Amino acid sequence: METVNAHHLLQVHERIRQYIHATPVLTSRLLDDLSGAKLFFKCETFQRMGAFKMRGAANAILCLPEKKRELGVVTHSSGNFAQAISLAASSLGVKAYIVMPDNTPAVKKAAVAGYGGIIHLCDASLEAREKKTSELVRKTGASFIHPSNDLQVILGQATAGMELLNIYPNLEHLVVPVGGGGLLAGTALGAHFFGMDCKVSAGEPANADDAYRSLSSGKIQHNNSANTIADGLRTELGNVNFPIIKEYVEDIIRVNEEEIVTSMKMIWERLKITAEPSSAVALAAVLKQKEKFLGKRVGIIISGGNVDLNKLPF
Amino acid sequence: METVNAHHLLQVHERIRQYIHATPVLTSRLLDDLSGAKLFFKCETFQRMGAFKMRGAANAILCLPEKKRELGVVTHSSGNFAQAISLAASSLGVKAYIVMPDNTPAVKKAAVAGYGGIIHLCDASLEAREKKTSELVRKTGASFIHPSNDLQVILGQATAGMELLNIYPNLEHLVVPVGGGGLLAGTALGAHFFGMDCKVSAGEPANADDAYRSLSSGKIQHNNSANTIADGLRTELGNVNFPIIKEYVEDIIRVNEEEIVTSMKMIWERLKITAEPSSAVALAAVLKQKEKFLGKRVGIIISGGNVDLNKLPF
Repeated sequence: METVNAHHLLQVHERIRQYIHATPVLTSRLLDDLSGAKLFFKCETFQRMGAFKMRGAANAILCLPEKKRELGVVTHSSGNFAQAISLAASSLGVKAYIVMPDNTPAVKKAAVAGYGGIIHLCDASLEAREKKTSELVRKTGASFIHPSNDLQVILGQATAGMELLNIYPNLEHLVVPVGGGGLLAGTALGAHFFGMDCKVSAGEPANADDAYRSLSSGKIQHNNSANTIADGLRTELGNVNFPIIKEYVEDIIRVNEEEIVTSMKMIWERLKITAEPSSAVALAAVLKQKEKFLGKRVGIIISGGNVDLNKLPF
Repeated sequence: METVNAHHLLQVHERIRQYIHATPVLTSRLLDDLSGAKLFFKCETFQRMGAFKMRGAANAILCLPEKKRELGVVTHSSGNFAQAISLAASSLGVKAYIVMPDNTPAVKKAAVAGYGGIIHLCDASLEAREKKTSELVRKTGASFIHPSNDLQVILGQATAGMELLNIYPNLEHLVVPVGGGGLLAGTALGAHFFGMDCKVSAGEPANADDAYRSLSSGKIQHNNSANTIADGLRTELGNVNFPIIKEYVEDIIRVNEEEIVTSMKMIWERLKITAEPSSAVALAAVLKQKEKFLGKRVGIIISGGNVDLNKLPF
């Protein structure tokens, strides 16, 4: 990993500032009572395209040299990163090629197309996805941007926690969900450089606990299955974000499906926002390890709000 | 009606300021495209206890002389006003007696009790409700506060629109839902005194269109039935708010149940907030009369976010 310092992170924030929203922070007396902690929810539900992924996507594209930008960008994702790359690219007048499995729900394809992404469908296997992606890179000269295992993406994601610490500098803990590891690695860097001894933990679905096992064993582990409602967290860590996570993250807290749904419902009922299931995993982690966070000032990043209202778990 | 002027309204805002939140304003490019207008959503979902009713409740209690306050307040409501009076009263160290029909859902009783309201159940008839309320007033000396037909409640509700106009002074229209008429009358006063030729319209469920018929005929009309998902809007206008509405409101736009649910879904999906069905009626009205609002800067008050997640219409 190239060496990252506080100055780099400030530059990233400056670079992307006009392409993102400085999202609001919500609090709830009832959730404080329930957790025994003082919670500050950074609501990326209100980010452009509805998730923190906009930050990393914008930074990664802005970091490309002009000549490369003209040839476009490619990513593979059926989720929020596909929308983020599409919107960030179209905001910058850059072409975005999005590789999606052909079983992607119509609503997600429509969202990507709505933001100007050029969709290329492939079979639903990892192999087919990688083949299609390489093909596009070869044919178009576009730059591949990985959804979570790319340093510029990670640095972009760091800005959510930086904004939170800028308003509440004395947070003792930041808690985020972990899937591919981009938000977690970014938040860990943000807390390291801008927090006052601010520790970072992640919540992870027990049904897709590769990050927990990776951190325990010191080597990247894989999921045999990833059957969780937190569909944004079915992905795995990579060689760029894992070293950062190993160095700066305190622990990863596993939560079960029921705990995720309960926390999601609490967020909807108490904060009045439509947080997606993946977002609820961080609150679930705080409630699971109550004694750890008792009496602490804890920042929680609500990662996104893109939910299918026809498939709610309650 | 006593004469109200701009100074009174400013005094009301000053009086209640520390008991309410100055709620945020959200915008959505997609909803702008869809409506052809520029929409500014004042989100009372984020108000204390989750609805604008907190404003009127706080003002009404604060306007009572000290001696009266010591004896407590009474209202009848099974909805947001019950919670608002309970929370406003407990914030001020005042007793709140809440008359509710005995078929009120347990979750609503729990919310009132949670805010410190003292619940008195009665039969589910208007007669029983009024009898129980008079009884409580007689026994305790507490002051009765009507949920919508009380001048101090109306003036409190005015402050939502005032805050919106304070940030966006050049709004050409404010649109709110109408049920009992407190928010509509208040908003009309706010727009009259603080808008720059800012017109006020209301959205109303066609299935409970007493306000539409009242404004058309010039006399308060009643509903034979009020079978609408917008459960906060099943109530009727009163002799305090109707004269204000007659004088200052431009029109009332009726919307059907499907239009309400469609607008509610749009708000959830695009603004990422859990607006209650009653709240969606204002957006539904704007979308129904597109030509009227075309190209205009329109403020919409999202009245509240207290929804039963187990009974969603989608």
